[in-house]
Amino acid sequence: MNIKITLPDNSVRDYPKGTNAMDIAKSISEGLARNVLAAKINGEVRDLMRAIDSDSTLQLLTWKDDEGKNTMWHSSAHLMAEALEASFPGIKFWVGPALSNGFYYDVDFGGRSFSSEDFKMIEDKMTELAKQNNPYIRKEITKSEATAYFTEKQDQYKLDLLSNLEDGTITFYTQGNFTDLCRGPHIPNTGVIKAIKLLNVAGAYWKNDSNNPQLTRIYGITFPKKQELDEYIVMIEEAKKRDHRKIGKEMGIFTFDDDVGPGLPLWMPNGAVIIEELERLAKKTELMAGYKRVRTPHIAKESMYLTSGHLPYYADSMFPPMEFDGERYYLKAMNCPHHHKIFKELNPSYRDLPIRLAEYGTCYRYEQSGELFGLMRVRCLQMNDAHIYCSKDQFAQEFNAVNDMYLKYFKIFGIEKYVMRFSTHSPDKLGKKYVNEPELWKETEDMVRQVLIDSNIPYVEVADEGAFYGPKIDVQVWSAIGREFTLATNQVDFAVPGRFGLTFRNANNEMETPICIHRAPLGTHERFIGFLIEHYAGNFPLWLAPHQVTILPISEKYNDYAKNVLQQLINSDIRGTIDHRDEKIGKKIREAEIKKIPYMLIVGEKEAEEGTVSVRLHGQGDQGSLKIEEFISKVQREVKSMLEV
Amino acid sequence: MNIKITLPDNSVRDYPKGTNAMDIAKSISEGLARNVLAAKINGEVRDLMRAIDSDSTLQLLTWKDDEGKNTMWHSSAHLMAEALEASFPGIKFWVGPALSNGFYYDVDFGGRSFSSEDFKMIEDKMTELAKQNNPYIRKEITKSEATAYFTEKQDQYKLDLLSNLEDGTITFYTQGNFTDLCRGPHIPNTGVIKAIKLLNVAGAYWKNDSNNPQLTRIYGITFPKKQELDEYIVMIEEAKKRDHRKIGKEMGIFTFDDDVGPGLPLWMPNGAVIIEELERLAKKTELMAGYKRVRTPHIAKESMYLTSGHLPYYADSMFPPMEFDGERYYLKAMNCPHHHKIFKELNPSYRDLPIRLAEYGTCYRYEQSGELFGLMRVRCLQMNDAHIYCSKDQFAQEFNAVNDMYLKYFKIFGIEKYVMRFSTHSPDKLGKKYVNEPELWKETEDMVRQVLIDSNIPYVEVADEGAFYGPKIDVQVWSAIGREFTLATNQVDFAVPGRFGLTFRNANNEMETPICIHRAPLGTHERFIGFLIEHYAGNFPLWLAPHQVTILPISEKYNDYAKNVLQQLINSDIRGTIDHRDEKIGKKIREAEIKKIPYMLIVGEKEAEEGTVSVRLHGQGDQGSLKIEEFISKVQREVKSMLEV
Repeated sequence: MNIKITLPDNSVRDYPKGTNAMDIAKSISEGLARNVLAAKINGEVRDLMRAIDSDSTLQLLTWKDDEGKNTMWHSSAHLMAEALEASFPGIKFWVGPALSNGFYYDVDFGGRSFSSEDFKMIEDKMTELAKQNNPYIRKEITKSEATAYFTEKQDQYKLDLLSNLEDGTITFYTQGNFTDLCRGPHIPNTGVIKAIKLLNVAGAYWKNDSNNPQLTRIYGITFPKKQELDEYIVMIEEAKKRDHRKIGKEMGIFTFDDDVGPGLPLWMPNGAVIIEELERLAKKTELMAGYKRVRTPHIAKESMYLTSGHLPYYADSMFPPMEFDGERYYLKAMNCPHHHKIFKELNPSYRDLPIRLAEYGTCYRYEQSGELFGLMRVRCLQMNDAHIYCSKDQFAQEFNAVNDMYLKYFKIFGIEKYVMRFSTHSPDKLGKKYVNEPELWKETEDMVRQVLIDSNIPYVEVADEGAFYGPKIDVQVWSAIGREFTLATNQVDFAVPGRFGLTFRNANNEMETPICIHRAPLGTHERFIGFLIEHYAGNFPLWLAPHQVTILPISEKYNDYAKNVLQQLINSDIRGTIDHRDEKIGKKIREAEIKKIPYMLIVGEKEAEEGTVSVRLHGQGDQGSLKIEEFISKVQREVKSMLEV
Repeated sequence: MNIKITLPDNSVRDYPKGTNAMDIAKSISEGLARNVLAAKINGEVRDLMRAIDSDSTLQLLTWKDDEGKNTMWHSSAHLMAEALEASFPGIKFWVGPALSNGFYYDVDFGGRSFSSEDFKMIEDKMTELAKQNNPYIRKEITKSEATAYFTEKQDQYKLDLLSNLEDGTITFYTQGNFTDLCRGPHIPNTGVIKAIKLLNVAGAYWKNDSNNPQLTRIYGITFPKKQELDEYIVMIEEAKKRDHRKIGKEMGIFTFDDDVGPGLPLWMPNGAVIIEELERLAKKTELMAGYKRVRTPHIAKESMYLTSGHLPYYADSMFPPMEFDGERYYLKAMNCPHHHKIFKELNPSYRDLPIRLAEYGTCYRYEQSGELFGLMRVRCLQMNDAHIYCSKDQFAQEFNAVNDMYLKYFKIFGIEKYVMRFSTHSPDKLGKKYVNEPELWKETEDMVRQVLIDSNIPYVEVADEGAFYGPKIDVQVWSAIGREFTLATNQVDFAVPGRFGLTFRNANNEMETPICIHRAPLGTHERFIGFLIEHYAGNFPLWLAPHQVTILPISEKYNDYAKNVLQQLINSDIRGTIDHRDEKIGKKIREAEIKKIPYMLIVGEKEAEEGTVSVRLHGQGDQGSLKIEEFISKVQREVKSMLEV
């Protein structure tokens, strides 16, 4: 008997019942069979070798797919565990998940020491085991058998995991000499893993609870090709040099303080310049695009978040309330409810739509202190936020305009690689994970997909990751050194406006609920500037550089002329400083180069007499002499051209 | 035996022991004796008729002095009580203080009704009693006598007040047939009160506690001249028309929402325009004046406010803390501690000073909900804040520059009447109300006074109202209709930088603590925009107007041309709208006039053909026809001239 397999291009093929994804891959091409890592069958990721017994949709996952990578890294964690167990017999394992870049395993070494000095030995052992090309074998097992197995091994960790599992859902996976309690899925065999690198070792409390003993967490990463690992290592090394925390401190961009609190950056003058320039760009761009600005408080009553639905579900990510006047007030974790209130007060008709309300609103989100990381994971978020309220007819055009704004920004910031990750709903979770509006889901998802296709923007579609109230787009960008960042999220919201009772009078004189697009193309200042520091390695382009120009007098005799030049720069909205120290000009130039200031202006007797400046460009040397006003025009022209893309 | 009386001009005169201030006034001039209301003797305000027994400083207070007004209004409250008691025998009185504009008395009418319809009767009775020219007679009385008196009257209110007073400190005041428990001081007699107006009547819970019965609070105001009352009534009527809450709502500037909370304004698009323009002005002005911008979070740990000294003393004015991670976090009520942290991180040398850190920081202060009033008394304050860190040598110049900035702003906003209220310390409260640094107090007060004198800024000096850590200047301004507002406060701080361990390396290579000047010339957006709405009666000047231009097509045929004009305006950073309704041009013009939009551009066939616009100015009518680009230059020129004062 045959079953029908529907492939992603909607072609349908017949296969005998009980076939598996690997066989299907082989039937398509040998090359595909060599590269395939796992299969997505009816939306669920599975082992390639599992039998398929009924008509199904099938996507073959390779290294290009996040879920393909994920599967390989999870299997690599098992491989590392096998190598560790071979080298340290009797050690115990807790959990070993895949991460967005690699994997880890938490290990109880039973008092024995393990350090990065042991990495080489384990990597070698993993390579040896990988070459054995051992299959990952799945076995369904009863709870009592599994319990007996781990009781025999005296493995309290796996017994603890088992205690939370239901009989009938339990599986073991075995590769080579290593067997693990695991839900899977896994790659077909260890031979796929061609390049291995252990990255880090750290202490981690069992179950993330500081009352429990510490386990040893070992991080690693693997690749299907040696060359990819080499590139990855280069990128990691470069990323270390460009670490935004290091450069941010050196350049006086931001700092943290114990009395203020973790995750709450203080923006130093040089960082505030970058913030002000980003806001100037955003405000100008939004003004030209027909946005209106608003300002809203950073707090609101509990009732607002009960209406929006953020409470009680999102309470863990919000700061705890302040209680007074018999009310609970919360720091806002998002700006939308405040904007909804303003939309309501505007009480618009269809002629006033779309209404685009923009605010650089600062939101506060509670993150576990262990999760905080430089500017990338913070508790204070200055968002390039706006909410667009429109009718269904206007949606495609508005959504398209938002995408255009992204593309404009990508050009300005030299972001060459990006992808829109389009998250949709899952029909079987309507009314649970997703608001129960099947028609609206289909309609808006179709509209979003069509805009993405029409505008030729690279995108991937991910089922079952939408927001509660509509489809979502995460914007992934890659920095100049090839590291991936999630910069911003767009959401289409066809549910919450109704909860707030938002309406507009339509052309038929009826009250209609608008759709709301949540968008923040520049994300938050915190994450975006963190990204830019790495992206530019601190060499900010002229328009963003904290100091655009430094004036270097040849000797103290010319300090007055330097001041005169500086005042002219300031009057022309150009950011300059003077190095008025009694130092040799060579030293001044070297230090200005280290500070990454785009322009150096050397001034001495000749310049003071002629009203000129000797121009040096960072990293490029002497550019000749210019009249002050010529230099000012040049800088203004360059800044303008950088922003008019 | 004679005593020495030192007058405010430092002249010293001899008088017999036991003289009183009224006699001294008479000895100076009959005119002064007619106008004097009370006396400030050794810093304490007293009745004119009290005997002076030892060498003293003396200031004779008239209607020009706040304390003179205050005394008269307090006496007027007694006069009103006398009139009320005469008209409603047996009523009881709680307290009757002076206010910044007038006075009130809380009355228990024992079930009888009192309404604004009774005002005329009471005013007439007060006038009659005033004309009797009854003296206010002070009598020291023992607690038991006073208790007997009010027990006999069955007056539980005054008995309640008495219960909190100490024997030996209790005084009665009597004028005509009315006797009150009162600390005084009072004017010499009722004849000084020439013009009387009752303003309002409202319920007020006894002791401000909603569990207590309600009393009737009657507000009034009095003047020493009939003409002043007439002017006051005109101003109040005009102020009602210009009520910022009314105009703010009509013009879509701000709104409040129950789910956000009282005292937390939401700024609508038209209000956000004003905010953005004010910030643009402030940022440009501060940039030119050598300020650096910073950005800081809205929260900080308790430890920060313990260091600054705001906790525990200022806790009542702060929002209650949020507790997490075993810490208490507070919403910031001021930006200084955050800025101090940034100064510390900058770790400057004397060559880097002065350092001027500016931020439009939003602070949160808890005000009782009954105290909240439109934009004037709010819980969310967007402050035009900055802190200037300088050495003592730099102080006068920096303080002077701050004053210059005020003067510049006064010109831009057409503020013609202003006064700096300079609050100093009181030597006998050093170590209690004031930080115990007698030398620094003297030095900084002398510096501030000298700058005020040198710069010819009108100022009044008020002893014993300084901040804990240094002298303070409150900037009082008068709106176009003559209402007084406290706009901003400057503070000189020579104590807190030390508490934060702030230092700079001075020219002698020693660590020195800087002085800090707190300044906020534009105050908060909330209060300043509230003031501006009244000041301009909503007719914002061109540069600040939410809509600068409205385009009025003669018919729908010219809507496209109107759009073309609008785009050119937007490209030139001019704020415009189109009235694209199918209405007669006369109606469009009338409505644009009501909306107070500075420029109306009428466009029809002729304009569309010639690329011109027919210009009308709000309230001024037709201004002739201009090419679009000419109109744009005209607007840009006008805006520029308004800001370059």
